[in-house]
Amino acid sequence: GDTTVKKAKAEMTFKERAELCKNELGRRLFGLMEDKQSNLILSADLTKSEDILKLVDIVGSKVCIVKTHADIIEDFTVDFVHKLQDLAKKHNFLIFEDRKFADIGNTVKYQYNNGLHKIIEWADIVNAHSVSGPGVIQGLQKVGLEKGRACLLIAEMSSKGSLAKGEYTKATVDMAKTYSEFVIGFISQNRVCDDQQFLYMTPGVRLEEGKDSLGQQYVTPSVAILQNKTDLIIVGRNIYNAEDPLNVAEEFRQAAYNAYLKRIS
Amino acid sequence: GDTTVKKAKAEMTFKERAELCKNELGRRLFGLMEDKQSNLILSADLTKSEDILKLVDIVGSKVCIVKTHADIIEDFTVDFVHKLQDLAKKHNFLIFEDRKFADIGNTVKYQYNNGLHKIIEWADIVNAHSVSGPGVIQGLQKVGLEKGRACLLIAEMSSKGSLAKGEYTKATVDMAKTYSEFVIGFISQNRVCDDQQFLYMTPGVRLEEGKDSLGQQYVTPSVAILQNKTDLIIVGRNIYNAEDPLNVAEEFRQAAYNAYLKRIS
Repeated sequence: GDTTVKKAKAEMTFKERAELCKNELGRRLFGLMEDKQSNLILSADLTKSEDILKLVDIVGSKVCIVKTHADIIEDFTVDFVHKLQDLAKKHNFLIFEDRKFADIGNTVKYQYNNGLHKIIEWADIVNAHSVSGPGVIQGLQKVGLEKGRACLLIAEMSSKGSLAKGEYTKATVDMAKTYSEFVIGFISQNRVCDDQQFLYMTPGVRLEEGKDSLGQQYVTPSVAILQNKTDLIIVGRNIYNAEDPLNVAEEFRQAAYNAYLKRIS
Repeated sequence: GDTTVKKAKAEMTFKERAELCKNELGRRLFGLMEDKQSNLILSADLTKSEDILKLVDIVGSKVCIVKTHADIIEDFTVDFVHKLQDLAKKHNFLIFEDRKFADIGNTVKYQYNNGLHKIIEWADIVNAHSVSGPGVIQGLQKVGLEKGRACLLIAEMSSKGSLAKGEYTKATVDMAKTYSEFVIGFISQNRVCDDQQFLYMTPGVRLEEGKDSLGQQYVTPSVAILQNKTDLIIVGRNIYNAEDPLNVAEEFRQAAYNAYLKRIS
């Protein structure tokens, strides 16, 4: 009875879960992951646009999302954005600006829509902290929904001493449920709720566990996807600092997608 | 005995409290506030640099800090920064970029130091959310301390449903105490700890109480400074949308500084 239903629920495929998602871009992402057999996100945290474009062209075929930090790019221009969008079409991935919006609604609306980066114009997906309350989502979706964009909430963080835990995480999940037309999932270390309409994306993933000197803590793809039951892994330095980024990206893609296949089998 | 000590502590002047502050820029700010008789922060949340510069030149004499959102400015350039710095010298105020850093240490280091905005080069003060844990401060102070910068932690927010409360706020206070060479105070609605080395800055202040359509909630200067015992008020829309910004800024300056004088008398 109950157990069977729960087990069946836990084993839904990405394409089956797409049906539950209330956001069109979210549904596209679920499908893209299965078509491309990739639940790998490249974190392209480089400071020169040429380096980013070169990297993305090399590993773009292996990833379903390229994650950017536009505000660390020294030579960010509209031309860079267009080239990135061309690569997104060529390799079939979505663009996720990891802005971590974290202000009141009225301010994030401008941060999303205005300024030099005009994030709304090119980022399929953005993310937000829930710390300021639901106003942050209301502000973002006011400009994002009509453009077919989607948002992730940061429910947990991979860094040491993070305060995104316990009641904070629960409140974040509640906000996502309330705004599920715009919020398609979470940045989290665990499957923070049992709702299959959402995607769970995990940063701080390496092929071996460990930490950096500024509090970042790493898990392996199999720990993230099989043990902690998240859906996508986010990998940055381990790929772009590698001698052969394509090869390492393929290793991560296989490890993460095989973990997913194992979970649904 | 105990009561007298506590009362005496609560009545320290800004200049007396400057002695307790472990950050040189923080000490300068405490002094500047008393010299200029201003605990008013202008939130210059406009999207055109010319409008910001015009506004700041009009009300600069009334404020101790001008707060910016560089990432909403459509035509942000190094030239704008230089003009803002000239105004800071002319009117004697500090520049506070309200970036609300909220990522892991390694990323905020780049967001502070790199990109088109190069915040480190011109912002005397920045702020950070504590949600990612102490790594965010470690990352920022790695580049900020040697340049004589200072940081505020967001301990509470003025928006409805904010998760910065209870244990979250307490953990934020602990982080500030651990990193008090770089952290000079808080964004908060209340005096979140009894430590007089810190400055407490309150956004969401209007001459009348109320709220906006995206969850922002307002208090008056006297509620902020006298009742909630914070030190500085942050005012944006109420000043720059006014017909006579100088006059309204003077009203806020008087209301806030008189509340401070009443508190120490």
